[in-house]
Amino acid sequence: MLAQAASKLGFHVHIYSPDEDIPAAEVAGTLTRAAYDDHGALTEFAASVDVITYEFENVPAPTAAFLNARKPVRPTPSALAVTQDRLTEKEFLKDCGIPLTAFALIRGPDQLEGAIESVGLPAVLKTRRLGYDGKGQTVVESLAHARAAFQSFGGAEIIAEGFVDFSDEISIIAARDLMGGTALYEAIRNEHHAHILYRSHVPAGIPAELAEHARRIGELLLKKLDYVGVMGIEFFVETETGRRRLLVNEIAPRVHNSGHWTMDACQISQFEQHIRAICGWPLGPTARHADAVMQNLLGEDIDGWQEYLAEPNLALHVYGKSEARPGRKMGHFTRLYPLTKR
Amino acid sequence: MLAQAASKLGFHVHIYSPDEDIPAAEVAGTLTRAAYDDHGALTEFAASVDVITYEFENVPAPTAAFLNARKPVRPTPSALAVTQDRLTEKEFLKDCGIPLTAFALIRGPDQLEGAIESVGLPAVLKTRRLGYDGKGQTVVESLAHARAAFQSFGGAEIIAEGFVDFSDEISIIAARDLMGGTALYEAIRNEHHAHILYRSHVPAGIPAELAEHARRIGELLLKKLDYVGVMGIEFFVETETGRRRLLVNEIAPRVHNSGHWTMDACQISQFEQHIRAICGWPLGPTARHADAVMQNLLGEDIDGWQEYLAEPNLALHVYGKSEARPGRKMGHFTRLYPLTKR
Repeated sequence: MLAQAASKLGFHVHIYSPDEDIPAAEVAGTLTRAAYDDHGALTEFAASVDVITYEFENVPAPTAAFLNARKPVRPTPSALAVTQDRLTEKEFLKDCGIPLTAFALIRGPDQLEGAIESVGLPAVLKTRRLGYDGKGQTVVESLAHARAAFQSFGGAEIIAEGFVDFSDEISIIAARDLMGGTALYEAIRNEHHAHILYRSHVPAGIPAELAEHARRIGELLLKKLDYVGVMGIEFFVETETGRRRLLVNEIAPRVHNSGHWTMDACQISQFEQHIRAICGWPLGPTARHADAVMQNLLGEDIDGWQEYLAEPNLALHVYGKSEARPGRKMGHFTRLYPLTKR
Repeated sequence: MLAQAASKLGFHVHIYSPDEDIPAAEVAGTLTRAAYDDHGALTEFAASVDVITYEFENVPAPTAAFLNARKPVRPTPSALAVTQDRLTEKEFLKDCGIPLTAFALIRGPDQLEGAIESVGLPAVLKTRRLGYDGKGQTVVESLAHARAAFQSFGGAEIIAEGFVDFSDEISIIAARDLMGGTALYEAIRNEHHAHILYRSHVPAGIPAELAEHARRIGELLLKKLDYVGVMGIEFFVETETGRRRLLVNEIAPRVHNSGHWTMDACQISQFEQHIRAICGWPLGPTARHADAVMQNLLGEDIDGWQEYLAEPNLALHVYGKSEARPGRKMGHFTRLYPLTKR
């Protein structure tokens, strides 16, 4: 979808990926299929382009640094480094004074008990790296359970987080351009099934002061990271303290699944905003012309396309992936409704 | 833009073109660059796809027929044959009982005088084939002028048309699916500069009965041609007779420049409608969520992109063509305005 947005603006797109199945190759002029540590291929790739971005925060930091020495990588490799490690990310957020759940690093089994004590039970154990869509995380109810989980992660460093009693999960899609201009789409309410995003709703139906707080946090993070491009920020709306307040769950240095509705309900999608930002263009408006509910099509959900098409207010997107594995994001649709005035 | 719409729905796209500069290759998975009469290349191309369409009515009829014997070509080669020859097209329209300007065939110089007499002066002389954007046509004020013009066309068969005194040029974008379902976008008012479309406006600002008449003509033509896909139909709003009435100017068996605003102002663009139709999918809604003015960027107009981007209600499209020749369509933009209620 980034490649399509770039083509719409007249840019030529060169995809670099080590994967077997690369849907983006279908909509880009040039493809290099090579490993993240293939310096020859990376050098040739960098020589062929003017600016480089990523759509996936698990690009190895050395790969990003190698490329950035040759052509600008946007968002910067430092934003990538901060967000691809849950510990670094949480320490960065804490340093920014942003409210988040209690967390503790666990380097080895002897640190499990202290960590669980500090964050409380139930706790969520997560690997420091390579987690998304619930991969590399588990909820534990006891210290014994935590020990078993730690083993299952293969002994890698993990973090423990306090379990949050939340009323809602929300997110915002925030963009910043090379000149420091920002553009934020309004807050989104998200539903997850089995840790995977299922539906995103705008309007989010949350109090205006919470939406405004989310926005201020977005502006702050964009500035602190000297960010260029689109960022997704996920929040819990915590209810434990009797009043609702925001806790940042995680930040993603890329376009975000919860912003896909912008393709159908906005003049400028999150994908076009990202391309404009990394290419040094000004950002566009973020207003929407419809209420919207985006729903992911996971695995065999995609087989329902005929049924979806029969709905007149539905815009369908299919990703062209070759195999519909369970839980795999195969496409999405957005249901559009008349704009509610607030 | 067709390739992009197809990719959005998960289809894989294979482009066949004899051209040097093929912008669509940047947004499609596969490209064959070969001549229209290369039967080996055409055979391989047909074997690799499920359905074939064209975005240009000057694909040679034998090429379309050759492909159609192997895989379905939609719209059918017969629709292509009718519309790629101005004489056949006008005779077809006349047979359908559709109002159009007086016309006469000119096979040789000895038929010039009679033809001019029958359509009157000034007259418009047009080659039967390969005309678009004012190419292959000229307005003549006298018989001597007509003789010179006939020479300049190289002696090919031409037609003479009566010169219409029109108040407006309008068009409609009409689609029909494999099951016979139709979807028509509302009438569009067009401005041309030097025979090339400059701006398209919705709403068109024409009386409701004219818009309804245009729609009825669209429905009739779709049915008469057993059409599958999107068709553009251009009309003059004639004022000579004291009251306004529609004359069909020409029909285009493809997505149409005057429908580009549907990309930004509608849930389903003309490009997606065309892809849905030729793939046997049902058509989508044609309602718009904004008033819109589309403007073509011709030649060096494209250099103004920074200025255009500064307008908050503007959606920019750049085609990625390699050279900005005078009059060449390099991109377009759509200005969006709040929907006026009628």
